[in-house]
Amino acid sequence: MNTDLPYGPVQDDLAQVEAALDALRDVDFPPMVEMLNLVLAKGGKRLRPALSLLAGKFGHYKLDLLVPLAASIELLHTATLVHDDVIDNAATRRGRPTANSVFHNTTTVMLGDYMFAHAANFVARTGNIRVIRLFSHTLMTIARGEIGQDMTAYDTRQTVRHYLQRIAGKTASLFATACEGGAIVAEANQDRVEGLRSYGYNLGMAFQIVDDILDFVGDEEEMGKPVGSDLMQGTLTLPSLLLLDRYPKDNPIPNLFARSRRRQEYLSQAVEMIRQSDIPQESYEMARSFGEKAQEALAALPRNPARRALGHIVAYVLERRS
Amino acid sequence: MNTDLPYGPVQDDLAQVEAALDALRDVDFPPMVEMLNLVLAKGGKRLRPALSLLAGKFGHYKLDLLVPLAASIELLHTATLVHDDVIDNAATRRGRPTANSVFHNTTTVMLGDYMFAHAANFVARTGNIRVIRLFSHTLMTIARGEIGQDMTAYDTRQTVRHYLQRIAGKTASLFATACEGGAIVAEANQDRVEGLRSYGYNLGMAFQIVDDILDFVGDEEEMGKPVGSDLMQGTLTLPSLLLLDRYPKDNPIPNLFARSRRRQEYLSQAVEMIRQSDIPQESYEMARSFGEKAQEALAALPRNPARRALGHIVAYVLERRS
Repeated sequence: MNTDLPYGPVQDDLAQVEAALDALRDVDFPPMVEMLNLVLAKGGKRLRPALSLLAGKFGHYKLDLLVPLAASIELLHTATLVHDDVIDNAATRRGRPTANSVFHNTTTVMLGDYMFAHAANFVARTGNIRVIRLFSHTLMTIARGEIGQDMTAYDTRQTVRHYLQRIAGKTASLFATACEGGAIVAEANQDRVEGLRSYGYNLGMAFQIVDDILDFVGDEEEMGKPVGSDLMQGTLTLPSLLLLDRYPKDNPIPNLFARSRRRQEYLSQAVEMIRQSDIPQESYEMARSFGEKAQEALAALPRNPARRALGHIVAYVLERRS
Repeated sequence: MNTDLPYGPVQDDLAQVEAALDALRDVDFPPMVEMLNLVLAKGGKRLRPALSLLAGKFGHYKLDLLVPLAASIELLHTATLVHDDVIDNAATRRGRPTANSVFHNTTTVMLGDYMFAHAANFVARTGNIRVIRLFSHTLMTIARGEIGQDMTAYDTRQTVRHYLQRIAGKTASLFATACEGGAIVAEANQDRVEGLRSYGYNLGMAFQIVDDILDFVGDEEEMGKPVGSDLMQGTLTLPSLLLLDRYPKDNPIPNLFARSRRRQEYLSQAVEMIRQSDIPQESYEMARSFGEKAQEALAALPRNPARRALGHIVAYVLERRS
């Protein structure tokens, strides 16, 4: 797995993170095992845990502490996806059935809680109170970002600034924490901790913007979900906000949000308008500018194979197709 | 508040826990404040935080560490209620509207997550890794208990043993942790830590059994929810399991679970059969036997005002009417 990904000096150590996640399924409670198999399936990019390990390379690379941290970050991420899918009522994610499409919504909420608990347990294994507090703060920020997204759903008055705030909370905060946490566990000096946090934050912003572009221009099969699904759920992202800006009149989005019977038609129209315009390029420009800030943050760090890998990750995030 | 409750030597210190919980609402995000106002309303018994403080009296009573612990326990409890209400689709709890009846289910799931995050943040303030791990383990146990409850809903083949396992997970575990955590933070010796844990566990079992009895025999107005609501949601508790045992034929419960149009009628019938029988007494017997075990655990602890208060709490839990 991950052979096409540039995780450089930590590539092999990621197997230990995988093993830590696997150990979760060792519970004497068959329904839980079945659910965990579904949501923890291998084959994810494991980008966030890789960031934690790479950040650890800028201090004392203590793998026995970095592995639980990395596992906790991935688990926190997966748990928020599980709750997210309940919220979105999503039937598939990356081409696989979601937990809530297979189990009750109800059970799925608790499955997410169970995973949060495990994530908290993993982070406690670092024995590092500062990292534990960072972890809990991040979960607060993510939840707040998700609530913000829910509260602004179907609201066409929101701006790009609101959008950036939202994705800072729901996505970039965890990327930042993955990097900062790794640096703290490795006892890197404060400059490096801050540099890595800034790298992670900006990478996360770029990552989410690209995600939101792909939702319009991506290939359904590669993505494993229908094109335009954000808009269908009332979530306005950068491309759709730009479309609203450009066509204040005769725009299919307000019609789509009016929940008429012709929703699918309005959705296709919005998707086509975005694809045919230069909105994807303009959106990529913004993603690239966050990518550049991530590279600038790296430039202040010592040159080493981990820094090189982090640089490649920026390029990968900007170029990915799914 | 709490004037009729026997929290003895910690009664006044509970105001500090209340203040810590109040501080949560100091966020610059109006919808969150509104939601937190609803779910953190004063007037709760604050039984679990009182247990943490009382347990702290068996060691070095460090209020600056015990208050965040107690707040984290209460918040963990409230967060699970918030998720529970999403699951049950409950409209009221203790006579007040539930979060999910006022906000989207979706937002409510994230509100619960936000509260978990705050709870984790509070527990991290103790600076005590052992307590942090205990906390994460407890959340795992609770989630597992809730999943178990969901998986066995409407399943009339379950036994009293299954029921006891479930309530041990969903309720007694947090009572046990409230006591154990307080003792650990206070650096009480291991015998006392274990004694207090055993007290908390048995108290929690008694508490939940009484709760489940009151769901059948309680006063709707005092309880702030309709009689028989557990059964209406498919949750079999001690009284309904005993009713199934006694009347294997001609029992209204399987009819109720068959989701016929006459559900309300079958529910009333089941409630009446339980109320008219000695099932409430038999159930109280079981609650009392857990109460006695809690008292036995206390007997091994040094005599002090906290021990006296813990003893009164057992009596209160067994006698409460709502």
